[in-house]
This record gives sequence, C-alpha cells and structure tokens, in this order.
Amino acid sequence: MSASPEAPGVAEQALAEFVAATPWEAIPEAVRHQARRSILNILATGFAGAGEAAIDTALRVMRPFSGPPTARLVGRPERVDAALAAFLNAAAANIHDFDDTHPPTIIHPTAPVAPALFAVAEGRMSPGRDLLRAFVLGAEVECRLGNALSPGHYARGWHITSTCGGFGAALGVGALLGLDRRRLVWAIGNAAAQAAGLVETLGTMAKSLSVGNAARGGLLAALLAQEGFDGPAAPLSGVRGFARVYAEPPGFAALVDGLGSRWEIGRNTYKPYPVGVVLNPVIDACLRLRAEGRVAWDGVDHVTLRGNPLLRQRTDRPEVTTGRESQVSAQHAIAIVLKTGAADPAAFSDRAVAETRGHRPTITFVDEPGRDIASVEMTVRMRDGARHDLSIAAARGTPNNPLSDDEIADKLRTQARASGFPGDVEALIAAVWTLDTQPDAALIPRLAAR
Amino acid sequence: MSASPEAPGVAEQALAEFVAATPWEAIPEAVRHQARRSILNILATGFAGAGEAAIDTALRVMRPFSGPPTARLVGRPERVDAALAAFLNAAAANIHDFDDTHPPTIIHPTAPVAPALFAVAEGRMSPGRDLLRAFVLGAEVECRLGNALSPGHYARGWHITSTCGGFGAALGVGALLGLDRRRLVWAIGNAAAQAAGLVETLGTMAKSLSVGNAARGGLLAALLAQEGFDGPAAPLSGVRGFARVYAEPPGFAALVDGLGSRWEIGRNTYKPYPVGVVLNPVIDACLRLRAEGRVAWDGVDHVTLRGNPLLRQRTDRPEVTTGRESQVSAQHAIAIVLKTGAADPAAFSDRAVAETRGHRPTITFVDEPGRDIASVEMTVRMRDGARHDLSIAAARGTPNNPLSDDEIADKLRTQARASGFPGDVEALIAAVWTLDTQPDAALIPRLAAR
Repeated sequence: MSASPEAPGVAEQALAEFVAATPWEAIPEAVRHQARRSILNILATGFAGAGEAAIDTALRVMRPFSGPPTARLVGRPERVDAALAAFLNAAAANIHDFDDTHPPTIIHPTAPVAPALFAVAEGRMSPGRDLLRAFVLGAEVECRLGNALSPGHYARGWHITSTCGGFGAALGVGALLGLDRRRLVWAIGNAAAQAAGLVETLGTMAKSLSVGNAARGGLLAALLAQEGFDGPAAPLSGVRGFARVYAEPPGFAALVDGLGSRWEIGRNTYKPYPVGVVLNPVIDACLRLRAEGRVAWDGVDHVTLRGNPLLRQRTDRPEVTTGRESQVSAQHAIAIVLKTGAADPAAFSDRAVAETRGHRPTITFVDEPGRDIASVEMTVRMRDGARHDLSIAAARGTPNNPLSDDEIADKLRTQARASGFPGDVEALIAAVWTLDTQPDAALIPRLAAR
Repeated sequence: MSASPEAPGVAEQALAEFVAATPWEAIPEAVRHQARRSILNILATGFAGAGEAAIDTALRVMRPFSGPPTARLVGRPERVDAALAAFLNAAAANIHDFDDTHPPTIIHPTAPVAPALFAVAEGRMSPGRDLLRAFVLGAEVECRLGNALSPGHYARGWHITSTCGGFGAALGVGALLGLDRRRLVWAIGNAAAQAAGLVETLGTMAKSLSVGNAARGGLLAALLAQEGFDGPAAPLSGVRGFARVYAEPPGFAALVDGLGSRWEIGRNTYKPYPVGVVLNPVIDACLRLRAEGRVAWDGVDHVTLRGNPLLRQRTDRPEVTTGRESQVSAQHAIAIVLKTGAADPAAFSDRAVAETRGHRPTITFVDEPGRDIASVEMTVRMRDGARHDLSIAAARGTPNNPLSDDEIADKLRTQARASGFPGDVEALIAAVWTLDTQPDAALIPRLAAR
C-alpha cells in the first residue's frame, strides 16, 4: 500500500522520485517528439516577441543587475547572465500568448521551462538529450500541478502559466543539474516561496514580469537547492503549502497518478494565431466567413458566441486600447479578422486596435460549461438583416486538429523572417529536430541569437 | 462625494495620490521618529542575520547574477548590485524574525522596504530626508494593505511580510524616484505580479527567498514603472486583482481611510527576542519564572498557554530540528529559556535545539480569540506536582510596553558586537538619529558595511 497522495509530503516525494529516477530511455518517442515540437514553437514565438517594447524596457532596466554575460537571447544581439536570459526569453516567448497550450489547464508550458534550461546549458556543456529529458520532466510536473489546481486556481485569478511554471523550471533545472531527491524537494519549496502571477495583469506588461520570474525564479530555486538552501518537507501539500493556499480543493491524485506512464506534456498544442487560445475557434470562424466573402466587416450588427465559459471569462473585453489587450478581446478579434482576413501579430498591434475602435461588434456570450474550448457556435447578424451561422468543432492547433511538424517549422520561419532575423533558420530547425543527438544543447541559443 | 473605495481602481488612485503628494512636512515628528527607530532596529537585526548560512548560500549562488557592485551589505564586506543588495539585506534582517512588528498584522514592515531604499540611494545622491519620507510612505501602504487583508490572508497561509512587503518596497522606491501617479499605479501592478510567500516555509531557508524577493521585486517594480513598464488600472481592487485573489473579503476602507492623518507605521514595535512576536509574552513569563528560581527546567510536566489563536497557529511546533524552526516553536522556547535564562540568538541556534530535544514540555494551547497577542496566561505543572501560574499583560516590545530609544540602540550595539563588526557603531547610531539632516542617505550603508 502506498501512502495517500493527500498526506503532507507524499506528493513531493513522488515528484522528486520521478524527476531524479526517470531515465531518457523511459520517455516514449512520441513524448520526446512533442518536446522537440514544443521547443521549435517556443523559438518561433520568441522571435515574435523579442522586439516588443516590454522586452526592450525590461532589458534596459534589468541589465545593470546582470552579471557576466554568459547567455544569449532569442532574436536579439545582447548577452546577459543566465538568470536574466531565462527571464527575458520566457517573457518574450509568451508576450503575445502565441506560445503553446496544455489544453486541460491553458498553461503555456514551455516558456517558463525551456528558457531556464537553455540559460543553464550555456554555462556548462549539457548534451541535448539531457536538456530534452529535463524539459520533459519539468514541463510534465508543471502541467500535472496545473491539473491538480484546475479549474479553481485560474478561475480565482491566478495566471497559471506563471504560478505553475516556476515549479516546472525548478524541477527541469533540477533534473539537468542532477539534484538528488532531497534537494529536488527543496527546489519545490524554493519555487513555492516565489509563485506569483495574476490574471488581472493580462493585456499589460506586468504579465511578462510574472512569466519571466517563473523562469528566473525556478532556475534560482534549483541552483539554491543544489547548494543546500532548504525548504519545508511539504511545500505543495502541507497545511499551508502552495496547493492548499492557491487552490481548493487541491486534488493531489492528478499530480502523481500515472507518473511516468501517462504524459501530460505529450498533449501539448501549438497556436496558429497570436491570441488567447480560447479565441482560436472564433478566429477560425471569422476566417471562414471572410474567405467565403459573405460579410462586410463594418456591417456587423451583433455576434452571439456559444462557447466554454472560459471564452467569456477571458475575452469579453469590448474596450481594449492596446495591442496586448487586444489578444484577449473577442470584440477586437472578430472585427480585425473580418476586416483584414489575417490573424497574425500585426492584427493584434496598437495600430490594429485603433482601426477597430468604434467598429467592434457587440457580443452576447452564451456559456456552455461542457463545451470543448476548441469549439464555438457563432451567429453573426448583419445590419441589413442577414444572418450567418458558423460552427467550429475543433479549431486549428487544438488537440483534434493539431499543427503538423511542417506547420510548426513554418511558424518559426515566418516569425524569424518577420522579425528581420539574419541568422540561419534552417540550421536552427534542424538542430531542434536532432537535439537529442547534439553534444551541446547550447547550440540552440547560439543559432537563435543575433 | 468621493467614490467608494470598493470600486475597481479607486484605492490605487488614493494610494498613488498619497505617495506622490505627501510632503515631508506633512509627516508628524512622532511618525518620523518611529521611522528612525525602525531603521536603527533593522540594522541591528541585519547584523544579527548577516552571517547566517542562508545568506552565505544565497550570496554564493546569486553573485554570478549580480551586475556592477554599487551597493553594500550590512555587516558584510562584499559589494553587489542594488537588486541583490536589497534582496540580501532584507533576507538577513528578517532571518531570525528579530525585526520589527506592526501589531495588527504581524507584518515585519522594515525589512522589505528600507533595504530597497538604501540600495537605490547608493546609486544616486539622495538626501536622508527624502529616504526617510519614502520609507514612511512605503511602509505605511504596506501596513495598511496588511490591515485590509487581515486576518484571512495570513490565516490562509500567506507570509504577509513577503506579500505586502513588495508593495511597500515598490511604493517606497517610487516615492524616492519621484514617480508620478500613473507610474505609481504601474508600480503597484508590477508588485502585484510578483507577490509571493508562504507560511509553510517558516523555519526554513525558503522563507528568506520571499522576503528578499519582496525587496528586490519592489525595487524593480518601481524602476520598471519609471521606464514605462505598465500594469492594470486596478491591480489591487480589480475583480482578479491582488486583494481579491489573496484574501476575502478585502476591506478596502482599511487601506485608504485616514491616509495622511492616521499613521499605521507609527504603531511599529521592536523585539527584545529573536522569535516570532507571538512568543514574546511566553518568553517574558519563562524569564520571570526562572528569575524567581521557581523551576528546574527538566522537571516540567505540562504547560498550558491561554493566548490569541495566532500563538497556537504559529508556534505549536513540538518537533523542530533546526535553529530557524525553533524561533517559531513554543515547545523549544519554553525549554531553552527555563534552562539557560536567556532568549538571545544563541538560544535559537541548531545547538540549542539539540539541547532541548527530548526535554521539551507538552503544551495545551487554549485559543482566546479576543486576547491581545502581547499577553498570555501560562500554567506550568511540574512532575513533582507543583503548579506555577503566570500572567503577562503586555510583553516587552509590544505597544503598551515598547522598547525605549536607548534599548533599540543597545540592541544594535549588542548585535553588531556579537557579529564581530569592526566598524564605528556609535557613528552609525548617530547617523540614523540625524538621517533627515544628512545630505546623502548612503552614509548609512557605508557605515554599516564591513
């Protein structure tokens, strides 16, 4: 009989055992491949975000607090220390919410984890296989922690990518450093002491602070644990541990059941559009409507959206004023896609937002709690009385309609090109697909930096 | 008619107005003097904590991530960047829970705020008066935020010094930088994106991570806001803002009513013993009992403590194994004080904990929700059948029995001496008492460093 996962400290021991004792060979090829796809995708969105004003500002403010420059930034020429590189690469890759999505939790798993790992890898010769293993293990715990806390955690107002991401980074880096079980529990404790991030900050630069901190804080959590910086025995499951303070009821079975046999990170998905994932089916519907030439965008009277309640909770934002806010505004998304026929980063820029102001449709959201977030029923009523009904069962980039390997590689090519990246993108793509045979994982940041 | 403080964004505007528009002249001398006492006391506890293993370890791990060394550490010879100095000085000053206490909330107000301010002051010529003003304003908001969230916030498991401290640091540094109202609200948002800290970590090194981060994160929150890094309009009071996510019900009136006329930081208190403040009356009782020669420490059979429920919640820890844990263990505290007659840092060291193992009394805690935390009724039953009843109405260092100015200065002398500090402690004490006439606030860190 094993101990109940609800007993304090039991879940932490199980996670430490999983991270310390799961060899590369025990990770199925399908999961390994999903990890490669995740890294390819995070590089794509890293290029997309690297030039954002929030990243420029954060770099300018934080650079005086960077140590010797050992680490690179995706799509940028500056060199900084590993902690700041983890911060900036995570923040940039997530800034448009264009990165990956773990469907049950809406966590963006890779942004907090992979940048922390690559930053560490630049300071030491780490085989690509070790990094890929560390990524899988860290991201797996991150997603499972999200499952254990969902849906109450996000619904209350926690930015789940930031809060759970710090644990993923801590355990991923802990795996790369080869920490023992006791130190892995300390790393969890050090991550718990730093877990932060609020939904209220979505659409502002402050969101990037918690995402960047998840990567940086997780990296430090593991480095501190390695040097003996200790934490409590039950940082997640203790009476005042993370899981009990940040959610209720915690549900620890989701955290530990089937560890090593069922892989949450294997379910990762990738976005075709730079918006909150719940908007994907809405954009698919708008693109279809426009491709069929059926509407004049400024002739829309009213839109009804039947979707998962998360669609309303996250995207009912009629009055957005900035590009960043517009990524979580159904009102703007519908207007701009019907107008331009495109759902690329330019469609969610400050300029695009100014174009839709005064022309956004009113929307009635109809909550359907059981509905897949990948689906939507959209009814568009025109001023001339016409009515268009569209049904999207599985939006592009969702579990039943995933992007192909080629589509993800194309996403990287497109984003690198759009950012003006002068480097060798094909070499970068090839390096990711062959990462587990590369002798030095730092090849990736070397190829991705300017 | 002013807007309700419960409406989103109203409280934040009031706080920004308070911080931006309160001149030095509007701060009563009694409050200014409390600020000087707070700074004197935080230097004392900074010396006490500077040599702790957790600080050594954090410095060793984080130093590769420090920029050019512009800032000093209390009681230590190393120079680091302002962000790391803020982190380490805050962590060290709070590590023994020997620092100050805002009685209604049990916040340690100064550790997150003053170290951030002094670190900034070392990089620019800041008059002592400006720093003292900034400290008062930042710490005032920190304590009021604690009031607004209490008692539910701590009771749920939040380490309130860390969570609220980040806002105090952000607004204190914002005041020192002279941020305008809009940027002060952004600074609040940037602090909200980083607020963390769990009661579960008390007694472990991980606690120091959240306290240090409060200072460092608050400093960065203000510097980022200064450069245009924006946040939401209602980072505290929004539907998914900090106050609504981290507590319920928030109670915003406590945050903003009487701003500028009623001063929470004026209520600050200072500890005679390096323990959780709720243990102070228990230690007073034990010292009295021992001074009267009435007990043999190893003859105690059972102790009953009638106290505020926080006494039980925070200190019922019979099985502690480290010095840090012992600072929040009533069982250890009673045993060691009855044994040695002293309640100094040595009484809460790893060695002292080993001495009491197997000799700690069993305790029955009787919760009395209305009781002042400064008071306790203690009954000690001896193995020989004797019974001793003690009543402490107002423990030393509590509001009705505060430490005098001389006692705080003596605390600084004692702690500096115990740490082997070779500097001029009398000059440091004089500089604190005259801080508002000093042309450069950096005089303090210069005198306090090795």
